[in-house]
Amino acid sequence: MIKVGVVGATGYTGVELLRLLVPHPEVEITAVTSRKEAGSRVDSLFPSLRGYLDICFTDPAEASLGDCDIVFFATPNGTAMKMVPALLESGARVIDLAADFRIRDVETWSDWYGLEHACPGLLNEAVYGLPEINRSAIADARLVANPGCYPTATTLGFLPLVMQQGLVDRNHLIADCKSGVSGAGRKAQVATLFSEADENFKAYGVAGHRHLPEIRQTLEACVGDPVGLTFVPHLIPMIRGIHSTLYTRLQDKSVDLQALFEDYYADEPFVDVLPEGGLPETRSVRGGNVCRIAVHRPQGADTVVVLSVIDNLVKGAAGQAVQNMNIMFGFDERLGLAQPALLP
Amino acid sequence: MIKVGVVGATGYTGVELLRLLVPHPEVEITAVTSRKEAGSRVDSLFPSLRGYLDICFTDPAEASLGDCDIVFFATPNGTAMKMVPALLESGARVIDLAADFRIRDVETWSDWYGLEHACPGLLNEAVYGLPEINRSAIADARLVANPGCYPTATTLGFLPLVMQQGLVDRNHLIADCKSGVSGAGRKAQVATLFSEADENFKAYGVAGHRHLPEIRQTLEACVGDPVGLTFVPHLIPMIRGIHSTLYTRLQDKSVDLQALFEDYYADEPFVDVLPEGGLPETRSVRGGNVCRIAVHRPQGADTVVVLSVIDNLVKGAAGQAVQNMNIMFGFDERLGLAQPALLP
Amino acid sequence: MIKVGVVGATGYTGVELLRLLVPHPEVEITAVTSRKEAGSRVDSLFPSLRGYLDICFTDPAEASLGDCDIVFFATPNGTAMKMVPALLESGARVIDLAADFRIRDVETWSDWYGLEHACPGLLNEAVYGLPEINRSAIADARLVANPGCYPTATTLGFLPLVMQQGLVDRNHLIADCKSGVSGAGRKAQVATLFSEADENFKAYGVAGHRHLPEIRQTLEACVGDPVGLTFVPHLIPMIRGIHSTLYTRLQDKSVDLQALFEDYYADEPFVDVLPEGGLPETRSVRGGNVCRIAVHRPQGADTVVVLSVIDNLVKGAAGQAVQNMNIMFGFDERLGLAQPALLP
Amino acid sequence: MIKVGVVGATGYTGVELLRLLVPHPEVEITAVTSRKEAGSRVDSLFPSLRGYLDICFTDPAEASLGDCDIVFFATPNGTAMKMVPALLESGARVIDLAADFRIRDVETWSDWYGLEHACPGLLNEAVYGLPEINRSAIADARLVANPGCYPTATTLGFLPLVMQQGLVDRNHLIADCKSGVSGAGRKAQVATLFSEADENFKAYGVAGHRHLPEIRQTLEACVGDPVGLTFVPHLIPMIRGIHSTLYTRLQDKSVDLQALFEDYYADEPFVDVLPEGGLPETRSVRGGNVCRIAVHRPQGADTVVVLSVIDNLVKGAAGQAVQNMNIMFGFDERLGLAQPALLP
Repeated sequence: MIKVGVVGATGYTGVELLRLLVPHPEVEITAVTSRKEAGSRVDSLFPSLRGYLDICFTDPAEASLGDCDIVFFATPNGTAMKMVPALLESGARVIDLAADFRIRDVETWSDWYGLEHACPGLLNEAVYGLPEINRSAIADARLVANPGCYPTATTLGFLPLVMQQGLVDRNHLIADCKSGVSGAGRKAQVATLFSEADENFKAYGVAGHRHLPEIRQTLEACVGDPVGLTFVPHLIPMIRGIHSTLYTRLQDKSVDLQALFEDYYADEPFVDVLPEGGLPETRSVRGGNVCRIAVHRPQGADTVVVLSVIDNLVKGAAGQAVQNMNIMFGFDERLGLAQPALLP
Repeated sequence: MIKVGVVGATGYTGVELLRLLVPHPEVEITAVTSRKEAGSRVDSLFPSLRGYLDICFTDPAEASLGDCDIVFFATPNGTAMKMVPALLESGARVIDLAADFRIRDVETWSDWYGLEHACPGLLNEAVYGLPEINRSAIADARLVANPGCYPTATTLGFLPLVMQQGLVDRNHLIADCKSGVSGAGRKAQVATLFSEADENFKAYGVAGHRHLPEIRQTLEACVGDPVGLTFVPHLIPMIRGIHSTLYTRLQDKSVDLQALFEDYYADEPFVDVLPEGGLPETRSVRGGNVCRIAVHRPQGADTVVVLSVIDNLVKGAAGQAVQNMNIMFGFDERLGLAQPALLP
Repeated sequence: MIKVGVVGATGYTGVELLRLLVPHPEVEITAVTSRKEAGSRVDSLFPSLRGYLDICFTDPAEASLGDCDIVFFATPNGTAMKMVPALLESGARVIDLAADFRIRDVETWSDWYGLEHACPGLLNEAVYGLPEINRSAIADARLVANPGCYPTATTLGFLPLVMQQGLVDRNHLIADCKSGVSGAGRKAQVATLFSEADENFKAYGVAGHRHLPEIRQTLEACVGDPVGLTFVPHLIPMIRGIHSTLYTRLQDKSVDLQALFEDYYADEPFVDVLPEGGLPETRSVRGGNVCRIAVHRPQGADTVVVLSVIDNLVKGAAGQAVQNMNIMFGFDERLGLAQPALLP
Repeated sequence: MIKVGVVGATGYTGVELLRLLVPHPEVEITAVTSRKEAGSRVDSLFPSLRGYLDICFTDPAEASLGDCDIVFFATPNGTAMKMVPALLESGARVIDLAADFRIRDVETWSDWYGLEHACPGLLNEAVYGLPEINRSAIADARLVANPGCYPTATTLGFLPLVMQQGLVDRNHLIADCKSGVSGAGRKAQVATLFSEADENFKAYGVAGHRHLPEIRQTLEACVGDPVGLTFVPHLIPMIRGIHSTLYTRLQDKSVDLQALFEDYYADEPFVDVLPEGGLPETRSVRGGNVCRIAVHRPQGADTVVVLSVIDNLVKGAAGQAVQNMNIMFGFDERLGLAQPALLP
């Protein structure tokens, strides 16, 4: 049984984290913080938790987060970096679900996030929390940077192709990605009002999106070479789910792509390669911590198409965070995550 | 560990039942039948079950359902009644999620369902599976008639009011009910196509809906008197959820309605009475086996308004069926059902 | 050709008004105001108007609204009352789509709207803009209070029943109403975010909603007697549409309800009584200026059920405003409003 | 005033055609056919047309379609080809909204549509009804093949790039397309049920979709050279709208792409090129006959991204058909089509 704190639990990744942590057999939730909601019951904000979590929000300044074995940050970008050094000092381990520790290069981070970093010295120590590439480093980490949602779906889809030298043209990867609206968070803004986002579909961030450098950094770290990526995100009129449609030019047509993907992920508990011809649906992962992938080569031409889906709040955020926690504390990696998706 | 069979698992109550049964610690799923899908893998139809259920559909004629400890029918109305007598004979217990055994009076049943009943002799033995009124009878039952979705939300909302003699005008109950589209099932039909049901709201079955006699029968059995009910169902453009808005005229204004409801359901694990002024949301029960209720008396006038929400596929179908199974086999009633709802 | 100004055109009733006014053959739009968007093109905020409206937002203080023949206010409550006196002075006529002039009694208005009224002297002059009851007064009005969306659907549904002395119990009217999310407007707030409102259904304002006194005032003015009303609004996960389900107790069972409704609305261009047994769908009025109504008496009992649908942004707001403008300026009442609804 | 017949008006393109034709000042609708609905009122199936169309469905065999000036086919593929020869014979002109006359090569057509063509001799005469490339041929045509929805959005997006020799790599065009569910039509099937399609996103037809040869044929006819295309369609949980995201490799970086697109479509009444950096939303064209386009070159790299949106039922079907009719009969091309989109 470990003591767990959640900082900033009033957003969607926060409540999703609570949903997953509440029935986790090795977890005791000892602090849930929110400056704005301090003093009110967590289940008055999220009635779905009535009967499951008998606790009030506390102000982060007054919560004894340092006594926790692990603290999750489900805060806006720029918050975790101010509190993490002291927490690590006090012996707590940290998983940041925001972007404060995802980018290695501090200047790149500042360029994309428009902030000065509060603890650049930790950027190198932070482990990028994608278990499929960093499992052993995560196990030993004090500080884990939980990956973004688009990067999770996109990186897992490209990996088997780019890892094999000479298989595809790594300079011209295309990621046409689509996300449900919950990815934009639970903040008051016109753009994600129901009447703006419903019955509508559009691209956004075409000129540049913060997940672009994150994906590129991960792929480049894996292959040890520069990678060229065009990344176009779109907004889907639904709450949960990401669908990455990935395109790349095949340079070696002799490879059995289906076998390549199945072998690559054979031992991964949370990556599911569909049988040949498969078409993964986002609803097949709704509420579940899984990335479901299919690989196609339409008309036998030289363009490979990879389809990769996740629930942005689970494998793209809170579920992956719990998976990382399980790895960090030596629990079964599937603990608390072995529930089928909610379909329909 | 009990052996469980599911007949007709290609619909929404079927797949929901599998979602709940798969991680249930006392259950081994030994047969999942479908005439049409016999021979194909269950998880090829429902990819959400990939990794959780390694089994194929079998033809009901060839499945050894008689060896099961319990058989669930998630079939269209009129199917279970043909198979149940033989199953009971062979020692299996049965929960029918359809309507074959819900109505006591065989002529009323035939009038509303347009079929001749295949085993009217079992109608009296069948126990109406609403644990909040029939818990001990369910425990001993061979055959449980799992309640309809509207009847569950509506009956639980009216019960505390009508059970107290003289409190409300039982002759003029009004149930204005709204349901998500999954209640109409997974059959090919124009009326529930996405492009027909989305961005649309309408009433249906105003002249008469099959759940009307079911609700009336239950309330009359509970109070021992005739009950007058106007029941108007509506279709909501969403997948899951029922919201019953109930109206009745108060005859005794001295009663503390909030206390009445809280006391009435104090010991119920799956009925949650909200604090005074509460407004239950259907999403607060999405995927969860709970009925969430609030009671209001607007402007202090003599009309009582009860708001009652459930997930039609869980407390309104598969979850209640698992709850009934838990009761029948002496398991903890919450076993396999203690997961918070999926919000958002 | 009349000169038309629209104040506060950045919300949903504003853009809907522009959609209807742009192709109106007797209208020239001379001013569209917004404090916040002053200087930017209207079609940069609403690209649906590209090619139809070559105009920029102007600051209301600088727009020559007094030169307009008519000025529409599509502003939040409390704005119009500050500007209307001067506009009337300058000879412009006014239609307020907000609530500033809907309630006759200034204290009742202040109680429900939480503001002091800026020009109580105009409350008596203002004509309630429901053409079906006030057509001739509207024709001569300087100032029209455009009705609320719920009041339009609900009043038109109840009218034929309550107008006939002794037909129904006027002391216990029940209006169970459901609205699409656009009714909540285009302002940044958490409650109407896509991820909050989608796949969700809930009641709100049960303790008291501002449209309650408005409906009651209109019905009482029509029948000349007090009326008792229970009004429960709900939020539907869709953009446009209101569905009022109305209940009342029949006191005289001899009346032919279908004929009553058909006769009552025989000459109304924008009220459509469905044939017996009809079930109006909100999508059948999407984008159209029509109230579609059906009347039922389930099981031949003494409870009458009326189903009444409108598009909250059209017959519930902008369309009714254009209808009122047509009446005020002696145009054909259908001018600019004779387009079938968008289905699907 | 021309006499117009609509064959097969029970689907979504059919009712949309009626919505557009009803207020068209030069059109008299003289026959609306449906084998299944013959004898029943059109507005009983589509109540949105109540008050606008006082006509019953007739059996196509009994309708005097030959007396029409123009007959629209809104039928499933394979129907029009059986009736068109006789209609042309009798002097009527024809616009087929299905695919019977879209593909020039009869074997290619049979391969993709799985039918033998009933009148291959007409394939050469039929004019592909994309006004932006075939305006003058359409004016004189007896038989117009109205383009598919994906082909309209995709072709208009690619045209300015591929028409200029040497600008982009025509051998590796990628079209990542997304469509609302109404594109799948109004037929009873499980895959497009609300509970299957809502809150879900998936690709389909990756191995091969019938619109692939259609797009390729049009582009190749325009450029006079072979074209390589990867086409991946996806299903969006909304009713109307197509968003094509197009990718191609730039070979000449000196061209001003924004000017190229603006010049190319300068005189087109129904193609709207957004200002630099624009992000077209599908809702901005809902119900409107317009294709809205933006062109991007992310990070100044050599991949061009074009975003192109239409309403699949309007510019992608019924609206384009009316546009073609206007051209064929010498009416103003915008007649009956000059209504702003319905937003929100």
